Amino acid sequence: MEKMFTYSQLYTFCKNVFTAMGCSETDATTAAKALVAADARGIDSHGVARLSGYVRLWEAKRVNAVPNVRVVHESPSTAVVDGDAALGLVAAPFAMQVAIDKATSCGTGWVSVKNSNHFGIAGYHAMMALKHDMIGIAMTNASALVAPTFSVERMLGTNPIAVAIPAGSQPAFVADFATTTAANGKLEILQRKNADTPMGWVQTKEGTASTNANELKTGGSLLPLGSDREHSSHKGYALGAIVDIFSAVLSGANYGPWVPPFPAYVPMPENMPGEGIGHFFGAMRIDAFRTADEFKANMDNWIQRFRSAKTIAGEEKVLIPGDPEREMEAERMKNGIPILDVVVEDLIKTGERFAVSFA
Amino acid sequence: MEKMFTYSQLYTFCKNVFTAMGCSETDATTAAKALVAADARGIDSHGVARLSGYVRLWEAKRVNAVPNVRVVHESPSTAVVDGDAALGLVAAPFAMQVAIDKATSCGTGWVSVKNSNHFGIAGYHAMMALKHDMIGIAMTNASALVAPTFSVERMLGTNPIAVAIPAGSQPAFVADFATTTAANGKLEILQRKNADTPMGWVQTKEGTASTNANELKTGGSLLPLGSDREHSSHKGYALGAIVDIFSAVLSGANYGPWVPPFPAYVPMPENMPGEGIGHFFGAMRIDAFRTADEFKANMDNWIQRFRSAKTIAGEEKVLIPGDPEREMEAERMKNGIPILDVVVEDLIKTGERFAVSFA
Repeated sequence: MEKMFTYSQLYTFCKNVFTAMGCSETDATTAAKALVAADARGIDSHGVARLSGYVRLWEAKRVNAVPNVRVVHESPSTAVVDGDAALGLVAAPFAMQVAIDKATSCGTGWVSVKNSNHFGIAGYHAMMALKHDMIGIAMTNASALVAPTFSVERMLGTNPIAVAIPAGSQPAFVADFATTTAANGKLEILQRKNADTPMGWVQTKEGTASTNANELKTGGSLLPLGSDREHSSHKGYALGAIVDIFSAVLSGANYGPWVPPFPAYVPMPENMPGEGIGHFFGAMRIDAFRTADEFKANMDNWIQRFRSAKTIAGEEKVLIPGDPEREMEAERMKNGIPILDVVVEDLIKTGERFAVSFA
Repeated sequence: MEKMFTYSQLYTFCKNVFTAMGCSETDATTAAKALVAADARGIDSHGVARLSGYVRLWEAKRVNAVPNVRVVHESPSTAVVDGDAALGLVAAPFAMQVAIDKATSCGTGWVSVKNSNHFGIAGYHAMMALKHDMIGIAMTNASALVAPTFSVERMLGTNPIAVAIPAGSQPAFVADFATTTAANGKLEILQRKNADTPMGWVQTKEGTASTNANELKTGGSLLPLGSDREHSSHKGYALGAIVDIFSAVLSGANYGPWVPPFPAYVPMPENMPGEGIGHFFGAMRIDAFRTADEFKANMDNWIQRFRSAKTIAGEEKVLIPGDPEREMEAERMKNGIPILDVVVEDLIKTGERFAVSFA
């Protein structure tokens, strides 16, 4: 069913594929680190399983391997970055670094990105801020799979939000979540098992409740966080909309139903109003508000108090956002990263295309 | 059951009560506008129904009618405001104006507030940014009523988030929502009707699912947006936590289970780590990213496309965040604002305390 790889095997393989695609040494390194971070942290749907998808986008000339990623508009605390059709795995770390630099000089930095592609996991980019004693924020839009409350049309992507907040002796708080009830990767797991979804994850193309994990293949939709009106799906819809507007309307990327699809074989939407897909990044220097020491002491107290909250009978503990991914990363860096056989085959085939093999 | 009042009657009455409490003319005006905006927009739980609660906090010396609200720490794009125990209705507009001023000079402004009190509806403060062609953001923590995923302890308030985004010919996008499945005001409506809640809004003090609208009175909790783990309540918990940290850990206010309660008769928590309750405000100048005209043309297109999305059979239309409140405001400014008899009696009694009557 699956094989074990070391982080370093996966990283080197991806870097070599990106280099073979024509990426510079620097860009290939940046992209491989961002991509394999997903596998290390246990978000398998966003890691090496997507490598061949990125290659197909490059073959379709929708990904530019030698982009001129640059700031095209700025103020002391803001910028718009033109990704020049780069891998999102390259454009996103560039833009997050611009946000960090702006925060260094004026307290906070906010960067909206156009003309980019899928950027991997949002949390990886947000976490870049932590070592600077900054709060990091990352979000992105994505192609439309989600029906707003009362809609049968897919209008929004799963549009994730990540917020990374430094602490002192405690590990950082790292929230990273799709603004839907369930991410698409969870449907894929159920599809492989031939299992149903719980009610509240998807609806049919007529907008009726469904438990069919394959519903999206016949025109159905994912549901916003909240699932239905009675459980406040309008809030999940609003969150997804905010991510879309900050990522794409602020930058001039495509938004809503016009966001380009990830699979290269899916035709592009008609009458696209912008360029590529959009992201949004923020960095806030802690000591632009209060001393980092005071803040971290309070964060440690916050984390310890929440972690020790009394649990429901049968539940082990109350988690802090980021706990599961951090524990997974420690375990996988030590014992290896399991990759499904079907993904291994796909990687080998992708490698053969460029005469790149596993070390 | 209810009586009709004009906006002006309610505004003048509240202003006179705040003046009688000792507020300056300016502060009383600011506070009355912020408070009655809730009634005008149909968020009745946060308007004049709370006036007597604010008065009781002043009587308990937890609200300072003559505060020195001031910036105590700043950078070009950030500030911390000490509310000096002011009404949140006074401290919040002050802090939002600081955010707007910082955005004017350096693109964005971000202000965390400590030592404040409840600030009414978040959307009112966020909307202050709109006339400056800025995006406005407002959030606040509140006393703990919400159990994080797996917890039986109440650790977070309903911690709302508001985001106001200007458009061109279309009305602004204004999202304003509690990070719980249901706001506390919705429970109060069901209590008055002796009705049950849907599953997924509350849990018992042991953490089991419940439909009892009175559950919070016996140690139960509101649930984070998402309701349960299977429907991603950990995302609603993360959102509420982010609001808490931005509002209180960044500023030095109380956070988590230590946030002071709104009812003046409820004892204060022990070992409070900060001062008062906390808020967080942001303002982003549109033209710090791209020209306001380009942005607004895209926002109009965004809004029109979403509003015209195909609906589920039986549903009239897909709403844009802010539609219901704006339509309610237009209707109530024209035809008057209905106030429940029990609230009218409470207002009359509050007026008598200060020899203030309805105009």
